[in-house]
Amino acid sequence: MLLQMEVNRLDFYIGLSLAVSSSVFIGASFILKKKGLLRLASKGSMRAGQGGYAYLKEWLWWAGLISMGTGEAANFAAYAFAPATLVTPLGALSVLVSAVLSSYFLNERLNVHGKIGCLLCVLGSTVMVIHAPQEEEVSSLTSMAEKLRDPGFIVFAVCVVGSSLVLIFAVAPRFGQRNVLVYILICSVIGSLSVSCVKGLGIGIKELFAGTAVLKEPLFWSLIICLVICVSIQISYLNKALDIFNTSIVTPIYYVFFTTSVMACSAILFKEWLSMTTDEVVGTISGFLTIILGIFLLHAYKDITFSWDSLPLYLRKGPQVFTLTWSQRVSPGSSESVPVCLG
Amino acid sequence: MLLQMEVNRLDFYIGLSLAVSSSVFIGASFILKKKGLLRLASKGSMRAGQGGYAYLKEWLWWAGLISMGTGEAANFAAYAFAPATLVTPLGALSVLVSAVLSSYFLNERLNVHGKIGCLLCVLGSTVMVIHAPQEEEVSSLTSMAEKLRDPGFIVFAVCVVGSSLVLIFAVAPRFGQRNVLVYILICSVIGSLSVSCVKGLGIGIKELFAGTAVLKEPLFWSLIICLVICVSIQISYLNKALDIFNTSIVTPIYYVFFTTSVMACSAILFKEWLSMTTDEVVGTISGFLTIILGIFLLHAYKDITFSWDSLPLYLRKGPQVFTLTWSQRVSPGSSESVPVCLG
Repeated sequence: MLLQMEVNRLDFYIGLSLAVSSSVFIGASFILKKKGLLRLASKGSMRAGQGGYAYLKEWLWWAGLISMGTGEAANFAAYAFAPATLVTPLGALSVLVSAVLSSYFLNERLNVHGKIGCLLCVLGSTVMVIHAPQEEEVSSLTSMAEKLRDPGFIVFAVCVVGSSLVLIFAVAPRFGQRNVLVYILICSVIGSLSVSCVKGLGIGIKELFAGTAVLKEPLFWSLIICLVICVSIQISYLNKALDIFNTSIVTPIYYVFFTTSVMACSAILFKEWLSMTTDEVVGTISGFLTIILGIFLLHAYKDITFSWDSLPLYLRKGPQVFTLTWSQRVSPGSSESVPVCLG
Repeated sequence: MLLQMEVNRLDFYIGLSLAVSSSVFIGASFILKKKGLLRLASKGSMRAGQGGYAYLKEWLWWAGLISMGTGEAANFAAYAFAPATLVTPLGALSVLVSAVLSSYFLNERLNVHGKIGCLLCVLGSTVMVIHAPQEEEVSSLTSMAEKLRDPGFIVFAVCVVGSSLVLIFAVAPRFGQRNVLVYILICSVIGSLSVSCVKGLGIGIKELFAGTAVLKEPLFWSLIICLVICVSIQISYLNKALDIFNTSIVTPIYYVFFTTSVMACSAILFKEWLSMTTDEVVGTISGFLTIILGIFLLHAYKDITFSWDSLPLYLRKGPQVFTLTWSQRVSPGSSESVPVCLG
């Protein structure tokens, strides 16, 4: 029993480090892809958002895809070792990595808000890691199959498939180009199924290494097929969203919707919340909300430059002059400087 | 043993509710006092910051003092039931109450940052409450006397008294009017001693109700004398700081310095951190940092009006016009509106 707990704890730390390193790769992939798409746009090719596929010829886009692939593989492995309620929210760190890299490679300067947002992401993630359930909920493909047959999960899966079909065929053609939520909702809702498949496959592969004949089980192959379908849909719609809208709006909204949807799915499928104390549940939710606020700050005020210089304002008396500078990243030439006299 | 734990848990909840209700009174007291001082300033009396004592004739200032007294009494009682590491940081809620009341009674509008800051204070406090040590460290005046005789604490107390004497007699006359930190540092450093006295007295009064003859102990009376001296110094310097500088800069800085100083003192005196697990220590620190960031947001951008209208900026394409409004509370007539065209 004590040995089993030790193994669980080791698994937890392996899963944790895989999740963190996957965030680095995924964060970098957003920047590479965006740089590739921007380069294509400057060449005048037909854009992904309008149905073009020219991005397949751009090596930067492929580098992004490979980085994302590596990240997703690490993420995949992380799910086999640690609970989804821990791994998915840690994706926030990829937002942080992408924010820091943006400031270097896409000339998007990180302002005071961005820095506070990054700190909040780290603090929220820390609190979530402390509170996340440490025990593995499923340890074999057979027990996974049982969980998948649970009526609660079947209802959830039917709702997910139904709502994404409605979004893809009825809503996306009409509102997809104007409203950023449509494409992101499709990715997020489908994403909860991908994570379930990944979790099942990860456990299957772990069993395979342990010598079980999982390759003969039809469930293993159905999970692979389901995963390929889900991930293709996700990649396609995430590309469309990234091409039409700013990375700084796509990334945070995608994070919030995707994580919420995975946590809901994980709660229904693995019922990991039932074994948690009230304190742990409250702590996990507080951590998640802190991350969301951090991501909001990181992105919502990204185009307004606040410097520390404007802060000691309140420490002085009498008339004060301070300057705020706005700059828009898409057209970096158009920054304006507005001196304002107060008092 | 089990019964003892139940009693400890009950004590913890009593202390928690006392701490929360004290925050409401103390938060309100800041607003009442500030309103009183503002009314005096408009009458042209000599200001507290310049050495005047006209505020003693203003009933609003007295209402503020009574509200603060009630709050401090609840706070006092809270220290007798729950550890200082929990009670002091919950003072953040008084900052929240004062921010919300400011927006009603001092016409200081709460912007988006303020709302995020309030949420962060609540989240950070929640995380701290979950992780704070639940056991009482000291249960009798005799054991308190032992802790006070600890060499570590004696060194700390000497440093506190020495540094506050230097601040009061050497630094304050020269820099007090220009630098907001001077008066606040005096209050905060002295505050750590007040809290220790309060903790000791609270335990003494609990013992008194239980029938112990604490009134004969010289320690009880020395604690009262020490508390009266410390609190008088604190009130006097907090008044000076509040009169010269904006509430929105005094409150957050005072919170951060005072809480840090109390936590340091409590850690040295009660060594409550030694019985905590790594997770609890990390959680407590994360919660405290989250509160600090929340308080920073609540106050640093208070004079800049951000509305939700300026946010969907990134969802639109093409040239955009948005408006930011600055307004300074001290002279409410001088607000300016600056339309800026981007793109």
